[in-house]
Amino acid sequence: MPKLWNETIETHRRDVRHAILAATAALVAERGLLNVTMSQIAEQTGIGRATLYKYFPDVEAILRAWHAEQIAHHLSYLTEVRDQAVGPAQRLKAVLEAFAAISHGAHGHVDTDLVALLHRDEHVGHARERVRHMIRDLLAEAVAAGEVRGDVAPAELAAYCVHALAAAGTLPSKAAVRRLVAVTLAGLRPVG
Amino acid sequence: MPKLWNETIETHRRDVRHAILAATAALVAERGLLNVTMSQIAEQTGIGRATLYKYFPDVEAILRAWHAEQIAHHLSYLTEVRDQAVGPAQRLKAVLEAFAAISHGAHGHVDTDLVALLHRDEHVGHARERVRHMIRDLLAEAVAAGEVRGDVAPAELAAYCVHALAAAGTLPSKAAVRRLVAVTLAGLRPVG
Repeated sequence: MPKLWNETIETHRRDVRHAILAATAALVAERGLLNVTMSQIAEQTGIGRATLYKYFPDVEAILRAWHAEQIAHHLSYLTEVRDQAVGPAQRLKAVLEAFAAISHGAHGHVDTDLVALLHRDEHVGHARERVRHMIRDLLAEAVAAGEVRGDVAPAELAAYCVHALAAAGTLPSKAAVRRLVAVTLAGLRPVG
Repeated sequence: MPKLWNETIETHRRDVRHAILAATAALVAERGLLNVTMSQIAEQTGIGRATLYKYFPDVEAILRAWHAEQIAHHLSYLTEVRDQAVGPAQRLKAVLEAFAAISHGAHGHVDTDLVALLHRDEHVGHARERVRHMIRDLLAEAVAAGEVRGDVAPAELAAYCVHALAAAGTLPSKAAVRRLVAVTLAGLRPVG
């Protein structure tokens, strides 16, 4: 087959895959993890059941793929936010705000079973570690600039940040999330 | 039967129950959630299998009972710590330190499957809520005394505290946990 044709097939497969993930995420958000079937996903995606099974063996596999995609998006979003901000303090603040916004968005409409299922995955562990490392490096940079307390190791401060900001998932409004970020940042201030 | 005899039986049952919970917790900590059987638990407790089944239908039920007992202990420990400290700032600090110590102790040697299993329980939700409320009330008291920032609602500050201090579960030492408490408290300071 000519190269162009191969590329067209590749693009098509990627599009179908993405549509399956989006349809599944929407159905699970609407009905809960245990109430979604492969037939419903096929219908919502607009493909046949046989085609769906060529892509994924079951609902769980789709959810894991969807979650991996979400996490990849979040990581590249955080990287982008970091690279657009200027100066250590601004970079740190921008990334912590973005991380809190992600936590706020992620937990609002997902059920506990789903969280338990997905968060046992290894890629979640890796992603968490990458975020923690990113924040740790930003903290180290801010400590060097005298903008963050130097009496506690950046890795420990990073653990504090990601845990404190995870509280955003339980907060009702964006205003509350902004206040949470302000409180968390206050904990990081140089000790006078 | 005379009342005394009934009480003796009651005490005996409580002792056996407690021994079962302790034996199970020890076995699970040693072998992991999925590698513990009812036979092993009976043997470790020093009772017959038939007797064990009179108390609990399966390993999961024992673990839930054990966890409920742990949580009850933690709650009464936090209450005791609160009631022994003098003054709003001291009470808050003492309870946050105790909470961090519990988080530090609880997650070190428990596997993820177990955490996922137990944390879906309703009694865990209730216990969490009671802890959050206790901390919220201590924060409100400290705000009134001018010891904690008044620009953020105590309920939001409580969410910040319990999440930030949960980081203690990932920290390697008691010294690191003390630093975490100090950083978390710094976030609460009145805005100058």
